[in-house]
Amino acid sequence: MDVYFDHNATTAVDDTVLDAMLPYFQTKFGNPSSRHVRGMEARRAVNQAREQVADAVGVQPAQVVFTSGGSEANNLFIQGAAGYLKPAQIIVSAIEHPCVMRAAQELARTANGKWNLRRLSVDNLGRVNPADFDKAMAEQQTGLVSVMLANNETGVIQDVAAISQKARACGAWMHTDAVQAFGKIPVDFASLNVHAMTLSAHKIYGPKGAAALIIDKRLLLKPLIYGGGHENGLRSGTENVPAIVGFGIACSLVKSRMAESATRIAAMCARLEQGLVEMGAVIFGLSASRLPNTCYFALPGIEGDTLVVRLDKAGFAVASGAACSSVNPGQSHVLEAMGVEPMLARCAVRVSLGSGNTLAQVENFLQALSGVVEELKRMSMVTL
Amino acid sequence: MDVYFDHNATTAVDDTVLDAMLPYFQTKFGNPSSRHVRGMEARRAVNQAREQVADAVGVQPAQVVFTSGGSEANNLFIQGAAGYLKPAQIIVSAIEHPCVMRAAQELARTANGKWNLRRLSVDNLGRVNPADFDKAMAEQQTGLVSVMLANNETGVIQDVAAISQKARACGAWMHTDAVQAFGKIPVDFASLNVHAMTLSAHKIYGPKGAAALIIDKRLLLKPLIYGGGHENGLRSGTENVPAIVGFGIACSLVKSRMAESATRIAAMCARLEQGLVEMGAVIFGLSASRLPNTCYFALPGIEGDTLVVRLDKAGFAVASGAACSSVNPGQSHVLEAMGVEPMLARCAVRVSLGSGNTLAQVENFLQALSGVVEELKRMSMVTL
Repeated sequence: MDVYFDHNATTAVDDTVLDAMLPYFQTKFGNPSSRHVRGMEARRAVNQAREQVADAVGVQPAQVVFTSGGSEANNLFIQGAAGYLKPAQIIVSAIEHPCVMRAAQELARTANGKWNLRRLSVDNLGRVNPADFDKAMAEQQTGLVSVMLANNETGVIQDVAAISQKARACGAWMHTDAVQAFGKIPVDFASLNVHAMTLSAHKIYGPKGAAALIIDKRLLLKPLIYGGGHENGLRSGTENVPAIVGFGIACSLVKSRMAESATRIAAMCARLEQGLVEMGAVIFGLSASRLPNTCYFALPGIEGDTLVVRLDKAGFAVASGAACSSVNPGQSHVLEAMGVEPMLARCAVRVSLGSGNTLAQVENFLQALSGVVEELKRMSMVTL
Repeated sequence: MDVYFDHNATTAVDDTVLDAMLPYFQTKFGNPSSRHVRGMEARRAVNQAREQVADAVGVQPAQVVFTSGGSEANNLFIQGAAGYLKPAQIIVSAIEHPCVMRAAQELARTANGKWNLRRLSVDNLGRVNPADFDKAMAEQQTGLVSVMLANNETGVIQDVAAISQKARACGAWMHTDAVQAFGKIPVDFASLNVHAMTLSAHKIYGPKGAAALIIDKRLLLKPLIYGGGHENGLRSGTENVPAIVGFGIACSLVKSRMAESATRIAAMCARLEQGLVEMGAVIFGLSASRLPNTCYFALPGIEGDTLVVRLDKAGFAVASGAACSSVNPGQSHVLEAMGVEPMLARCAVRVSLGSGNTLAQVENFLQALSGVVEELKRMSMVTL
């Protein structure tokens, strides 16, 4: 058995996506900046992908800035906006991905306290506390706000549009990291009313190495990478043509497939959670609005890391906390912010379903998990 | 006919490289930070590639910092080192790639003049002027020096080891952009005696989207991209596993194939330059030590852009100036620094040969070029 239940960490590249990418490694391998035929065909491919990405979130192609990944895009917004704005307060939620949180921390650290970092608290379901946001905005002049659309661990969805409205009213620039939400729920730039938004290819069956910062064209950003002036001067460096082409196709597939696959995946996830609850599991963020594919649970008394290893041996790839973070594999900062007891947080396991999964796999998983729990009980390794 | 003579802009991915990459898109697609089997196989692949890159330039794997491209690696060194050092003078050659030059300019601009940028002049063959370097070092305390190993336009090779020795003697950190040299001439980190060096995959028959900054382990650098702490904290973001795997294999191929292919390519280049001189061409940097594959020439009175377009129609992909720069397609800053008259510089054409080229293609090229020149003369479009 080989079942992949870790789609929030990364996804396999879709057949259609890989087929579209392949010609750009060997036959259409040109540098888009070259002025001969091979260069021009590569430029056209990048332009087409830009249209596909733009179309998927309802913006103009000129609003798409390609980057090498979501971490780069998030850093480009935070560092790039701070490079233009007068230092003020930067507000981020306490459950942001490390690439938002650390970029913001660095801003507060290196500007010698001129940028003041404010972490927004979340409630016990993982939702940003609106009262805390209002208080933060009232207390200090705010330049930047970044609140993720959906959390990578819990899948909990934030009311970004409501936060944007308040941020705009105070003249702040509003950004949302939509990396986990995109492809799983509808994401429309205009409806979210943000100034900037991050998307990534490898979470939506596209390749690693391509992502985008979607921007309001009036935004001025200082680049992270200077050079030949690619991406309208915002991101220099030879374009990763095959990855960008794959990102474009993956965005087209999101548009054509999401509605159907989200329904199917939501049904599987519901069955999974029903089974887990019957086994005595706690589901984090249970009654909050969540991504249809993400189930973050704990079986009290059984360490998440232990379960991940045992389930891996049984053929199921799941996560114990946030992947994408190799530095701090300890306690989840998301669960800590939600006020989850450390003992319970240590038991957290994330299942994130994807388009290739089936209901039979979910049933098999519940059975395998049950077997693992029984075995651990026999070995007296659990305190259930 | 479809002949690619623009290998300094980018190269097609080698069959062996692509074969090695392919499993990492769909079967071994895991996130290296994941703790299950799929994550671990991706982590092993990244580690193996790190060893292959390290081995190709004679360093330890821990000295390899993977980035998304050469522009990012060059920016990481310049901005990253400046983030730790006390502001002083930064010296770069006048012929650096824009990603070095503009990163250095930005440093001088944003540090409010605390970093002072000094551009090293070159002689009429495109070689850094040692007297100018000595003078620059003597006049002001220098923190950073960056001089490319081989120039992308002329192919002229700098005596980086000699410059490094002087830079080290004054306590400056020395970097070389070896993107164009690597794969064409032997590149050994220790012999060059630098603190940091940039390599890129897509110039050596590897994929776009992978590159490396090779560093002396004692170097402290401020990251450009904050987040999960990947690459020993120096470059966060999910690793582009397929591209990194391809980069590793491409480095292995450099080791096994370079000696033979460089000899073959040098012979082709010699024939090309003989033919060009017979046609009345000026070869830039003719008597300097140059890369075996690069021929940068001008036929006085015939605009380079015109030739590039006509040769493209005849089936030959060549460059009129530096690709990789989409912002300033005007005059070459390299030829300007070499003191080439603007009228002659406008006639510059770069042919950069690669492993797939043949002597027959060179002969055909000379014939085609001759035909194009005759045609232009008939049309009275040239002043030859």
